[in-house]
Amino acid sequence: MNEKRPQILITNDDGYAAKGLRKLVTLMRTLGDVVLISTDEVMSAKSHSCTIREKIYVRLVQEEEGFKEYRCNGTPVDCVKLGYQKLMAQKPDLVVSGINHGMNAATTVVYSGTIGAVIEACMNGLTAIGYSLFSLDPDADFDHLDTAILEITKRVLNEGLPNGVCLNVNFPKRGDELMKGIKVCRQAACRWVEYFKEQFDENGQQYYDLEGTFESDDIAPDTDLWALQHNYASIVPTCFDWTAHRYIEPFKNYESLSI
Amino acid sequence: MNEKRPQILITNDDGYAAKGLRKLVTLMRTLGDVVLISTDEVMSAKSHSCTIREKIYVRLVQEEEGFKEYRCNGTPVDCVKLGYQKLMAQKPDLVVSGINHGMNAATTVVYSGTIGAVIEACMNGLTAIGYSLFSLDPDADFDHLDTAILEITKRVLNEGLPNGVCLNVNFPKRGDELMKGIKVCRQAACRWVEYFKEQFDENGQQYYDLEGTFESDDIAPDTDLWALQHNYASIVPTCFDWTAHRYIEPFKNYESLSI
Repeated sequence: MNEKRPQILITNDDGYAAKGLRKLVTLMRTLGDVVLISTDEVMSAKSHSCTIREKIYVRLVQEEEGFKEYRCNGTPVDCVKLGYQKLMAQKPDLVVSGINHGMNAATTVVYSGTIGAVIEACMNGLTAIGYSLFSLDPDADFDHLDTAILEITKRVLNEGLPNGVCLNVNFPKRGDELMKGIKVCRQAACRWVEYFKEQFDENGQQYYDLEGTFESDDIAPDTDLWALQHNYASIVPTCFDWTAHRYIEPFKNYESLSI
Repeated sequence: MNEKRPQILITNDDGYAAKGLRKLVTLMRTLGDVVLISTDEVMSAKSHSCTIREKIYVRLVQEEEGFKEYRCNGTPVDCVKLGYQKLMAQKPDLVVSGINHGMNAATTVVYSGTIGAVIEACMNGLTAIGYSLFSLDPDADFDHLDTAILEITKRVLNEGLPNGVCLNVNFPKRGDELMKGIKVCRQAACRWVEYFKEQFDENGQQYYDLEGTFESDDIAPDTDLWALQHNYASIVPTCFDWTAHRYIEPFKNYESLSI
């Protein structure tokens, strides 16, 4: 093993068999040694869940020069924790999550297991990127992303990222025209508007199925959603400090409450 | 039912039987009509998970003047969605989550089901507060919080919160001296440092147990962790925009990558 090759930890939230994950492995193996840790089950909408109440089982399923593949019964966040703490011989130079089937732009980041893994890595001082495609198709075409993913990843490997910042990268799905370029932007305030469909199970008992539509009420040109809708890749520098800093001062009057 | 009483939706992540939840219900019932929707199981570390792959069953377990209690097999985020969309006659004036057994200060917010519920409410335009106590004891004393919780909640009911901002409130556990007051602060960058304990199950198969210690590498006086350690309640105005805004400009050079 060439000691100087970057050590790259990969995970995702669509489970080990996802096409987007396999594409990411192929791309990352051209850049470094890869340790893949994926989950037995699909972990979409598992957000930043981690496993604190159940046993976590891990198994090595493949090993060859420059590549190791593990699977576990945990969440994407567990995969990151396991990877840098237990399964890798050294701290990874980079953690990459995806390529997600489905976009993680706007406020969908909040629910995303893919981005959960990226933020977990970032919180632990690791350099991390999440890649997602604006298509839920399990057989989606990812080939139009090769150059973009390689170029973005190479720049991150070369230049690093500021402490406490990770990158959330989303791509438009393949269309008739080429992707126009990259926009560095803010997370749009658009959101899922869900509704519960009332159903009845085989015992006649009522249950709910969650369905949703995406509500685009913030598509200013500086947002990730605008970029995607105009056939650009979006990069949102993302952090785990959720303080609404500009409201600290206005709320100082709460300090005078008699408690 | 008095039509003018505030309609308050309560949930938590410690399960329906938690002492902190019952205390919160008692307090909130003095301020308004309460709909409680809690989960069958403990949902700590479930973060912003929601249920998109399984059936959600909900049942009404108690009903009296000004109070309804539901339970479901979902997550705290599901409880909020169900509450304002399906189970309440009108949009709640306030969503309150907690009182969590264990603090949700610093970066622990990222994992918290309690705060997941609060952020979910906030994302959907609802006024929301999370309350947590810096003690994991299931039988912790919550009585020293009565006035603080009532005063903070009354102010929020009277004045509202800015769009896109919710409050993450943490309290020190009961000590020998009275709580000193309230600090409005930022989320500390302290974090859990976990390690995996290697164990063997009854079949001799190795598994991992996640354990952790809390690493306090950021306890400046403007942080929530400092406040708690000095016997103050902490209020962090919290948002769901995770963009690292000051890094958008520095990253603009990514837009010139050839993709």
